[in-house]
Amino acid sequence: MRVIMVYDVATDDPEGQKRLNKVRKIAKKYLHHIQKSVFEGNITQSSLERLKYEILQVVDLYKDSVIIYTFEESFHYRREIITNSSDPTDNLI
Amino acid sequence: MRVIMVYDVATDDPEGQKRLNKVRKIAKKYLHHIQKSVFEGNITQSSLERLKYEILQVVDLYKDSVIIYTFEESFHYRREIITNSSDPTDNLI
Repeated sequence: MRVIMVYDVATDDPEGQKRLNKVRKIAKKYLHHIQKSVFEGNITQSSLERLKYEILQVVDLYKDSVIIYTFEESFHYRREIITNSSDPTDNLI
Repeated sequence: MRVIMVYDVATDDPEGQKRLNKVRKIAKKYLHHIQKSVFEGNITQSSLERLKYEILQVVDLYKDSVIIYTFEESFHYRREIITNSSDPTDNLI
C-alpha cells in the first residue's frame, strides 16, 4: 500500500530534538524523505505495523503528532511542493 | 477535489512564528485543521489556486515548506493519528 507519514515533534526542549532525530532515522528505514516532516512510500502491512511500533517507542504521545495516511498502491495523487526550501529529498521517489 | 496540506514553518525566529500564525489563519478559511501542521478538505480548483496564492504571500520560500496533495474527491484513504497530542482539531471532518 501507499503511505504518507507526517509528523510534528515538539522541539522546544533538548529531548524533543533527540526524539525528532530518532523519528527521522526510523522513518528513513521504511519510507522516502519528501521534505522536512513528510515521508512517503510503498510499504507492506507488516512493515507499516513495525514502523508504527518503532515510532511509538520514541515519540512523546502527548507532545508530538504523527499522522499516517494509507492508500491503495495503484492510486494516483498529485504532490505539489509550493515552496523552494532546500530540505534534503535525498531519495525522492 | 480532496486536498491534504502539510506545512513546516521555520519558527526559530520571531518572524517565523508570525508566518506560522498567518499560514494557519489562511488555511482555516479553506480547509479543516486536522492536527498541528496538517489541514484537509474538499476544495474547488479556483479555491485551491487562491489558497496557494495567499500562502505564498506569507511564507518564506526558502525557510518554510508547504506541500499540497490533491486527490479525486471520491477517493477513499485512511488517516490514522497514532499519537494523542491534544492539538485542536476543532472542526475535524
